[in-house]
Amino acid sequence: MKLTIDRGALMKALSHVQNVVERRNTIPILSNVLIDAEGTSLRLTATDLDMEASDTTIAHIEKPGSVTAPAQTLFDVVRKLPDGSDIGLLLDTETRRLTITSGRSRFALPTLPADDFQTMSKEEAPNSFEIPAADFRRLIDKTKFAISTEETRYYLNGVYMHGTEVGGAVKLRTVATDGHRLALAEADAPKGAETLPGIIIPRKAIAEIRRLLDDAAQDSDVSVSTSESKIVVKVGDAVITSKLIDGSFPDYSRVIPQSNSKILVLKNSEFKSAVDRVATVSAERSRSVKLTLENDKLVLQVSNAETGQGVEELEAQYSDEPMEIGFNARYLLDVTQQIEGDEIRFELNDSASSARVTDLADQGAQYVLMPLRV
Amino acid sequence: MKLTIDRGALMKALSHVQNVVERRNTIPILSNVLIDAEGTSLRLTATDLDMEASDTTIAHIEKPGSVTAPAQTLFDVVRKLPDGSDIGLLLDTETRRLTITSGRSRFALPTLPADDFQTMSKEEAPNSFEIPAADFRRLIDKTKFAISTEETRYYLNGVYMHGTEVGGAVKLRTVATDGHRLALAEADAPKGAETLPGIIIPRKAIAEIRRLLDDAAQDSDVSVSTSESKIVVKVGDAVITSKLIDGSFPDYSRVIPQSNSKILVLKNSEFKSAVDRVATVSAERSRSVKLTLENDKLVLQVSNAETGQGVEELEAQYSDEPMEIGFNARYLLDVTQQIEGDEIRFELNDSASSARVTDLADQGAQYVLMPLRV
Repeated sequence: MKLTIDRGALMKALSHVQNVVERRNTIPILSNVLIDAEGTSLRLTATDLDMEASDTTIAHIEKPGSVTAPAQTLFDVVRKLPDGSDIGLLLDTETRRLTITSGRSRFALPTLPADDFQTMSKEEAPNSFEIPAADFRRLIDKTKFAISTEETRYYLNGVYMHGTEVGGAVKLRTVATDGHRLALAEADAPKGAETLPGIIIPRKAIAEIRRLLDDAAQDSDVSVSTSESKIVVKVGDAVITSKLIDGSFPDYSRVIPQSNSKILVLKNSEFKSAVDRVATVSAERSRSVKLTLENDKLVLQVSNAETGQGVEELEAQYSDEPMEIGFNARYLLDVTQQIEGDEIRFELNDSASSARVTDLADQGAQYVLMPLRV
Repeated sequence: MKLTIDRGALMKALSHVQNVVERRNTIPILSNVLIDAEGTSLRLTATDLDMEASDTTIAHIEKPGSVTAPAQTLFDVVRKLPDGSDIGLLLDTETRRLTITSGRSRFALPTLPADDFQTMSKEEAPNSFEIPAADFRRLIDKTKFAISTEETRYYLNGVYMHGTEVGGAVKLRTVATDGHRLALAEADAPKGAETLPGIIIPRKAIAEIRRLLDDAAQDSDVSVSTSESKIVVKVGDAVITSKLIDGSFPDYSRVIPQSNSKILVLKNSEFKSAVDRVATVSAERSRSVKLTLENDKLVLQVSNAETGQGVEELEAQYSDEPMEIGFNARYLLDVTQQIEGDEIRFELNDSASSARVTDLADQGAQYVLMPLRV
């Protein structure tokens, strides 16, 4: 293998794959990136056995070939080389080392044979669709904060995605929940996604797909195809293939309150600041904030025997009977971060029932918060 | 106690003292800040028993008084209140809580009596001088990176400062070393500092003094006074009092090579990038880089059986006989960060002797690096 490549192109391709490599590996080859040089293109592939990322970029290839080299070191060396420089890659057939040259810099990295690198099997992907990158980004952003980190409930460790009919329109929905709160986002279902059966995309794949979407061209489409056990996402030349979480996502629709009749509307920015302030005196663990609703007024209150008391008063649109309800301050703040409009809208029932939260500027997103006893 | 104060003024004063408070305290009052309101000024004081920071700011005081309240919570609440707002502080004589009010926000924090707060005894400070803030900042910046973190050699856990005669001129010098490298900076001794006996200022006090200096007015002077056991630094209205390290700083002058005759001059920015790149393949622990000096050329090399090899070639001004010497990459990088001119200058003897490094743009700073065997 012998080739020359622009440092910027190599850097971009490496940054699309190197994050998949786990920092600590007992199997040495899992620390490596697979480098395939053929024709006029260089392909890089990284895997953690559950997911695989690859990217292809143009290179001037003198001698084709394949090898694997340490992903982190290769990435660091390329990152530290000056922008605009040319990089030569050469596999020394005698020492089996990968030589990286650029200007007066020369590096030699240990390699492992390309044949030992385990790539994911390509299988039939019966469901496939193209979705605008902006839509996919939104479906992920509005839900990923609610993914559970509790390993025992592994089926909650990802984002659930499926096609469904909502009031006559066909939607592609994403849902995430940790059992304490739930986030749901939907977009018009692209052709082919209308009947997408429910799949659970793992947290790490979600994070990597989201990173790729940052580099997606404006107004471009992303190609998604899924089988029963895998998802393949293509953004430009980059491809992420991930195993899906093998489990049943709970029936989330039963969790979303449909008939909460007490409506509270607040200025989101004011509410966010006030929650953040009163939370200052909350105990680390519970972070519980009490909301007291009165006519056109909301009082936020945190009381802690040790750390003190905080009270915030806010103007509110509320005209139902007075009520009190408690929430985790962290979860309230997470939701305020998702709101795009000026106002945040709560639908409440009583102090023991979940609240439904909506964004007046994005009707395709909703959030459910379980109350805390206060 | 009852007063009103501008949020910005309170924020600034709190930020000058709150860092002194240790995050975890077994003695509750050490988590608190002392608040003294008298006349037209509010004084805040924080301590960790080894050092004390205080700042005074103007406030509208209706009822004078003193109390202590949790420093971290008070700081967080004030930080989160909107800029430009007025803050009311009131000590509720019944509940003994400190009430903080601003707009529609109200907080009540637990307090402890001011009498239980331990302030540092004010003693005679026989040595005192005024020094331009910019000079003091430089004396700290050029040396603090070399402070030892090894607790057994406690006398190296700070910056040594003394007045001394250097070639007929009277200088104020700072020195720090961890036994592997040494940094020395000097400035013209201000009046009163000419005969300052050597004192060791602890790392934490150095950090806090440095933070204060960021807020010093342009071209302003800082007042420093020292006794055998303490240092008092005044920057504007803020005062830091710290115990000194009770130990003997080693005779650093014996460590500085005076007759190294091989001179190597490099472009600092090129050298910095090259060291950073080759260090990528060095083993975590030793981070050893080999420098090979030839006529007008420097070769940097790292070889590691596991992680690979890196070689960088640089143009250099060097005309002595060829030699090799090894250094810790981290220490080389630390020194390159201090260099203000375009060039870095090494004075070398042989591969087993320390190097003296100077900055052609700042003759008042010098660095010593111990070699590593390579």
